[in-house]
Amino acid sequence: MQEIRNFIAQNRGRFEQELFELLRIPSVSNNPDHKADMEQCARALAQGMEGMGLKKVSVHPTKGHPIVTGEWMGAEGKPTVLIYGHYDVQPEDPIEEWESPPFEPTVREGQVYARGSVDDKGQFYTHFKAIEAYLRVKHSLPVNVKLVIEGEEEIGSENLRGFIKIHRESLKADYILISDTPMFGRGMPSLCYGLRGLAYMEVEVKGPSRDLHSGSFGGAVANPANVLARIISALVDDNGRVTIPGFYDDVIPLTDQERKEFASLPLDEAAYQKELGVPSLSGERGFTTLERVWARPTLDVNGIMGGFTGEGAKTIIPASAKAKISMRLVPNQDSDKIAEGFEAHVKKLCPPTVTITIQRHHGGNPFLAPLDNPGIQAAGRALEKGFEKRPVFIREGGSIPIVATFDEILGKPCILMGFGLPDENSHAPNEKMDLDNFYRGILSSAHFLQELAES
Amino acid sequence: MQEIRNFIAQNRGRFEQELFELLRIPSVSNNPDHKADMEQCARALAQGMEGMGLKKVSVHPTKGHPIVTGEWMGAEGKPTVLIYGHYDVQPEDPIEEWESPPFEPTVREGQVYARGSVDDKGQFYTHFKAIEAYLRVKHSLPVNVKLVIEGEEEIGSENLRGFIKIHRESLKADYILISDTPMFGRGMPSLCYGLRGLAYMEVEVKGPSRDLHSGSFGGAVANPANVLARIISALVDDNGRVTIPGFYDDVIPLTDQERKEFASLPLDEAAYQKELGVPSLSGERGFTTLERVWARPTLDVNGIMGGFTGEGAKTIIPASAKAKISMRLVPNQDSDKIAEGFEAHVKKLCPPTVTITIQRHHGGNPFLAPLDNPGIQAAGRALEKGFEKRPVFIREGGSIPIVATFDEILGKPCILMGFGLPDENSHAPNEKMDLDNFYRGILSSAHFLQELAES
Repeated sequence: MQEIRNFIAQNRGRFEQELFELLRIPSVSNNPDHKADMEQCARALAQGMEGMGLKKVSVHPTKGHPIVTGEWMGAEGKPTVLIYGHYDVQPEDPIEEWESPPFEPTVREGQVYARGSVDDKGQFYTHFKAIEAYLRVKHSLPVNVKLVIEGEEEIGSENLRGFIKIHRESLKADYILISDTPMFGRGMPSLCYGLRGLAYMEVEVKGPSRDLHSGSFGGAVANPANVLARIISALVDDNGRVTIPGFYDDVIPLTDQERKEFASLPLDEAAYQKELGVPSLSGERGFTTLERVWARPTLDVNGIMGGFTGEGAKTIIPASAKAKISMRLVPNQDSDKIAEGFEAHVKKLCPPTVTITIQRHHGGNPFLAPLDNPGIQAAGRALEKGFEKRPVFIREGGSIPIVATFDEILGKPCILMGFGLPDENSHAPNEKMDLDNFYRGILSSAHFLQELAES
Repeated sequence: MQEIRNFIAQNRGRFEQELFELLRIPSVSNNPDHKADMEQCARALAQGMEGMGLKKVSVHPTKGHPIVTGEWMGAEGKPTVLIYGHYDVQPEDPIEEWESPPFEPTVREGQVYARGSVDDKGQFYTHFKAIEAYLRVKHSLPVNVKLVIEGEEEIGSENLRGFIKIHRESLKADYILISDTPMFGRGMPSLCYGLRGLAYMEVEVKGPSRDLHSGSFGGAVANPANVLARIISALVDDNGRVTIPGFYDDVIPLTDQERKEFASLPLDEAAYQKELGVPSLSGERGFTTLERVWARPTLDVNGIMGGFTGEGAKTIIPASAKAKISMRLVPNQDSDKIAEGFEAHVKKLCPPTVTITIQRHHGGNPFLAPLDNPGIQAAGRALEKGFEKRPVFIREGGSIPIVATFDEILGKPCILMGFGLPDENSHAPNEKMDLDNFYRGILSSAHFLQELAES
């Protein structure tokens, strides 16, 4: 390993320059004007894979943006790891808030500022450079690798899903490695082993066939907006618990060990509250903030609308009112089952004085990697060697839909070894990535391949 | 009186033609393009007043549209009645839904179709013709009259308010007569003796300083839309009663006599429900539909908005959510006192995990005419003679702001003697007025002046 580490150390500057080249390509997936840039970026990645010695390198056209794949399968008898990343980036707006141009990587105080730096080019590229190091130094890898880099993560990975289904056999792997999550904090290498799922619903309450004058008719008919408020209010109790029958039945409780480890993490609640701008934190009684966000289900109104919402006053009883309501789910809640429970409960809460329609938007199951999985264990040891610090095991409150997809289609858990920092402005102006984390990410990736071979 | 009745009967056709002339003037107050029409209409009314022998006829310019006044004060020792009406009309849109041109009065099956026919030209014009009958036949009126016809009722009567304040002395009267309300139904002469008031509020709940990702932060902070729903829900109890402390303290209960009279009115609840398009009627427990709409206070959400309201799904915790909430008030609730109670109660309901701001929009006090007032009694007898049927005493769920203004500034109750029908499409296409009601309205007005003189 020392040879590999030396190679990485000696080539650190070149690796950064190559990353910067990648960051100069404005691969914005949601904007048709960038179609040529998307293709250029895919080609550049394919050339990079060829250059470092991967086999079967392909740029797969899709209905949207291309998917780039490559592999090295020369480690007979050794496990195979599928490495996923995405080369598409968020739009740069609002452009005027950037301190340096979004597609001209600029280094300030050890951070490279550029759109896509941390999300996700700078993260998945660590694995490119780790693989390159092995193939240059040893002409082989300790394990088999398959790379899948897509160009539509920021717009829903629609075409990747079909691609994985079709190529289920050729994508077979023992482990899936994704670097697209943040570390808990600076100097805290982190392994994310849990994600929340989602059930996203839309409820519409309909009353009279038209908006009614609230003077002439107020008091005679149920007001759909009042009814909707009552329904929403009844969905969560005074302790912050969701009232849908059976909602908590499948929730895996946090172990004492997990609660202890969460509690040991340095979350500065006062700073967190100040940053969010809320008068106080709030949530389910009996749980800490990290427990609430990482390991407890929630029910949130994402949007609500009905009646007159312009300036001033209009005295109407709205004909209808609707709300988008989503639930974050935790292992082992099932998104479909929860959606059904929601529908049944909301219908029961709804009085016969109005009619109600409930629509399901997208959903996804939560994810929990078994902490005793050899891949997770190997990743933990690798991070410790890459960062020279014991990693923390964390969860994430959001969902990464592609993780559930891999889990479901390939039947293997994902190892989420992220090298970003929580304040690196992914999806915002002045996105950046810490170059020391980029370097330690390459080291960690190299160690991971080795650890996996030995585990 | 028989002479007067004969004159009115003999001139019925001419009166209708004169009304049609007035209806041909497109006096749409909300549209600056009709400024000249407004002035033409005001001049036509002044000429009509001069022609029938009123004194001190004036067209008063205002910052908006002119106010037309005239008087006849020759009945020494007799009471004075101030007659109010408005010559402005609603816009004609959507023009394509009119079966005949809105400003070309067209008679079909005894109804004249035209914008402004029932609201309010055809109604206030009954009094013009009753006065004319007396002045032609007897060269005098049984009581003193003052006419005030404004041109801004459909846009808020802003300038009339100031006009009344300034001319408080010269507008002094014993009774105020307004014909701008509907009858309970065809063949049911109606005297409206109560209106509801209003307190219109806007509540905004603010949480985080920006929309938050509902995955990364859901569970850690209070969701302003959920909080707003809880507050709204808590404002009305399961019996449909408003929970604001003291809310009902000043409510004058319906008398047994009133409840009996309301109950005797032929409200077809099934047809009413069908027309409104609701699955069932609903309201405060223990009261009938008419009682709920006419004589019980309500609390209705007029509009609600927060977070993502577009198509599809967006997983955010909204930074804020707001609602417009108005309460209809009944005698003797006080609009300001109720608004204060609302503010205090909502603040109390709001948890410390969010901040709240409450804004007051317009309000107005309810109105209740004393049924034993000699003017009301005289109006009742007059309607019976004009329509040859006993009148019904009704209330109205809405507010007529100018009624409260007259009540407050002049200190006299309004007599609301309406000649419209509930289905005559005021504010909608194909507005119409029943010509028999127009004729009987003139007779009723003539009888009213006589009854008032004798009372």
